[in-house]
Amino acid sequence: MAGDVVSAPATDLLALDRAAQALLFRAARTANAFTDEPVDEEQVRAIHDLVRNGPTAMNAQPLRVLLLRSAPARARLLPHLSSGNRDKTAGAPLTAVLAADVDWHDRLPELFPHRPGARDWFAGDPAGREAQARLNAALQIGYLLVGVRAAGLAAGPMAGFDTAGVEREFFPDGRHRVLLLMNIGRPAPDAWRERLPRLDYAEVVSVL
Amino acid sequence: MAGDVVSAPATDLLALDRAAQALLFRAARTANAFTDEPVDEEQVRAIHDLVRNGPTAMNAQPLRVLLLRSAPARARLLPHLSSGNRDKTAGAPLTAVLAADVDWHDRLPELFPHRPGARDWFAGDPAGREAQARLNAALQIGYLLVGVRAAGLAAGPMAGFDTAGVEREFFPDGRHRVLLLMNIGRPAPDAWRERLPRLDYAEVVSVL
Repeated sequence: MAGDVVSAPATDLLALDRAAQALLFRAARTANAFTDEPVDEEQVRAIHDLVRNGPTAMNAQPLRVLLLRSAPARARLLPHLSSGNRDKTAGAPLTAVLAADVDWHDRLPELFPHRPGARDWFAGDPAGREAQARLNAALQIGYLLVGVRAAGLAAGPMAGFDTAGVEREFFPDGRHRVLLLMNIGRPAPDAWRERLPRLDYAEVVSVL
Repeated sequence: MAGDVVSAPATDLLALDRAAQALLFRAARTANAFTDEPVDEEQVRAIHDLVRNGPTAMNAQPLRVLLLRSAPARARLLPHLSSGNRDKTAGAPLTAVLAADVDWHDRLPELFPHRPGARDWFAGDPAGREAQARLNAALQIGYLLVGVRAAGLAAGPMAGFDTAGVEREFFPDGRHRVLLLMNIGRPAPDAWRERLPRLDYAEVVSVL
């Protein structure tokens, strides 16, 4: 399959206009430095309002977002980051801690009302709940990242941190699993690294 | 926080135009029935081309997509589905099996070339690799779902299936974990169920 001839990007096959394609995907990049222009709460509300309807299994919506805005809150996070993530996080106007609520089943009577017994299916299965929480919250992070870009902002998702440390620091209740961190803001002039290679279609997609 | 006054959707705060907001999120719905209009390979290539640059940790890109197009391939999947997912999948023009490659680290020398030792960090840690594979592939499924909608198609993601059975049937190599299935096509007139309730901003987002 590696010898496949890959045709030019077939943007005319998409219903989404080219400006939106560029904003969300083609020109969008992970930012590694930010200006000090604040990201205000109305912008975050607009992003949430845009992506809130993204689908999750059983409509469970396990993603929880903790925004670190104040300097003292940010200072609590920095020691748990890998060294390469520390400076850019200290300099970002907003950092989101993205976590999955493993007790999402408690909301099912309200969120999945046509199956009144659904909550009880999961009550005795904490391992299954955690797996579902991680999967569905990660889907929601995908939608959220697109939403941040839809607001004209740049996202800087980060996996390099001490997960257990961040959970102890910010979620001592034990019912949240921290999946990812995301800096959010306007990119600084030195925000970009070289684009890394992506897998080709034939390396990702196969057909039966 | 439940008493918060939630302002009207602040679409003017978004850079994404309103038609694109509707196409990708606000008017988009999970489809449960499809017309028999085919989804051809050029459309799938255009979707992949749009979303391929979505970010993953260490640029690992662990998502693999197996498209079930032929009737014999579809017939192999149906016995593994929950009864509620069987008819709509049999009637969809295309079903994608969405899997994570747990040996994603083997591609790091190519995908993350500025850290030549990166592959070896993960060689002895299959549990850590699987967790990263599941997280990053789920992020990529989020981008992919947005991409399907960007093509003017409807997605029908499904979690109700026998995961072990689907893995045995389609990925006997043991290096793939099946995370989700997704029907793709044009929605039939009876495609929609009632929109289920979503969590409010104050139930999802908190600020420090």
